[in-house]
Amino acid sequence: MSIEPLADWKRLSLNQITTDRWSLREAVEGCLRADISWIAPWRNKVHETGLAESRRLIRDAGLRVSSLCRGGMFPAATAAEREARLEDNRRAVEEAAELGAEALVLVCGPAPNRDIDQARQWVAEGIERLVPFAREHGIRLGIEPLHPMYAAERSVIVTLGQANAMAAAFDPADVGVVVDVFHVWWDPELYAQIARAGEQRRIVGFHVSDWIVPVPDMLLGRGMMGEGVIELRRIREAVEAAGYNGPIEVEIFNQAVWDMPGDEALALIKQRYLEHV
Amino acid sequence: MSIEPLADWKRLSLNQITTDRWSLREAVEGCLRADISWIAPWRNKVHETGLAESRRLIRDAGLRVSSLCRGGMFPAATAAEREARLEDNRRAVEEAAELGAEALVLVCGPAPNRDIDQARQWVAEGIERLVPFAREHGIRLGIEPLHPMYAAERSVIVTLGQANAMAAAFDPADVGVVVDVFHVWWDPELYAQIARAGEQRRIVGFHVSDWIVPVPDMLLGRGMMGEGVIELRRIREAVEAAGYNGPIEVEIFNQAVWDMPGDEALALIKQRYLEHV
Repeated sequence: MSIEPLADWKRLSLNQITTDRWSLREAVEGCLRADISWIAPWRNKVHETGLAESRRLIRDAGLRVSSLCRGGMFPAATAAEREARLEDNRRAVEEAAELGAEALVLVCGPAPNRDIDQARQWVAEGIERLVPFAREHGIRLGIEPLHPMYAAERSVIVTLGQANAMAAAFDPADVGVVVDVFHVWWDPELYAQIARAGEQRRIVGFHVSDWIVPVPDMLLGRGMMGEGVIELRRIREAVEAAGYNGPIEVEIFNQAVWDMPGDEALALIKQRYLEHV
Repeated sequence: MSIEPLADWKRLSLNQITTDRWSLREAVEGCLRADISWIAPWRNKVHETGLAESRRLIRDAGLRVSSLCRGGMFPAATAAEREARLEDNRRAVEEAAELGAEALVLVCGPAPNRDIDQARQWVAEGIERLVPFAREHGIRLGIEPLHPMYAAERSVIVTLGQANAMAAAFDPADVGVVVDVFHVWWDPELYAQIARAGEQRRIVGFHVSDWIVPVPDMLLGRGMMGEGVIELRRIREAVEAAGYNGPIEVEIFNQAVWDMPGDEALALIKQRYLEHV
């Protein structure tokens, strides 16, 4: 490949799910030991630690926050439930602002029934209603398309093209898209849609892992970079050509990685990141 | 929904994988007992029984053959391997012709390495080389996009849009597309691409099953119609509006269905087909 490897891990961000056994404090301390300067906390971990304490830990460590995971989950069967989801998203925005996150990642949610078009409409409406609140708090929303195998359980937004189309209704400063290689690598439209996202500087996050063959588990089977078939460096090149030079989150849902001592996992991640991303 | 249920099971075709424990003879006899008039044999079963005997069994029973499963698997690491794959596809065409199949289903194959674009090119080349031979034998090829979760192991052709684009290089009488609800239900472009396929009468097959939540198994977790979240009737309506009124294959890869006595499975299939398709 023509593109150069990354010279260092300055852009590497630890998505906290990758070291799921660690508390936020442990993850922050692990990043410090590993000389990793970005982190992407998960809300459940932030809630365990407390928001103010999380903020203090991250700030004292000098870490930057690439994103907060996650808002979204907009569709629900009743208007009251959808309102509650929106309210929870407002809390997520406040937390993201408090933590100084570059963006709030949106995992948009599944349909509560068989009507996938209706659910997609609810996602669009939910984002539309969330945007003014997010703008007031200085938080950019990042629509993350999920792999179509999660369409029934996690997100009715399943392609980058769909995320781009949905984001297009908003100012790029308010709503962008997140490119996660695990979710989008298979898409024949991938490079065209990355370029399209770049035209308006919509890319607000770039996540890496790998697709192992065969997939060990639908949810917990993501691979460490280099273990699978994803053209990681080619996708990074496309994302950079589209104007994104921000943090690169390593987000690996994998039981074997979770079972490793955290420091070992981080050492391996850094090595594979330099070799493969 | 506005569309009417099917009044009978005249269009129902038993895709043989659904009763995987049955030999071809048993499947033919099962269809006769259940008053099912279409069958879609798998090549491994045809080979076990022998091609001439398979033909005789099907013809004597008065069954029609909706498709032969399957050709494809075009990409391979070396030119010699790709030539061998093509040769195997020629045998599949001959078998389809001998059995009087309406089409040969193409499951196009995974990449032998990380280069998914190259693999897609090999698929296009393989189809291009197969078409004249298939035309001579009166066999129409049906490109079946597979769910993106199979992109690394079974097919680099993963959306109906991609299948339509690939088919567009050929005469619709030679190359069409197969719409399998399990593979395409999640796609935001689904209805637009069904309509596009209809413009040139490209649809050569329609397969039904369901998407269970949560998916019990990536390969053997397809549901019986009505068990999952797929808008079966809506998709049938779209396929019919696109000009397809041919056989509807019930194709269920599911261990629990395989473990049922075949006659019970067929009775359940007929019931669910009338209720949900």
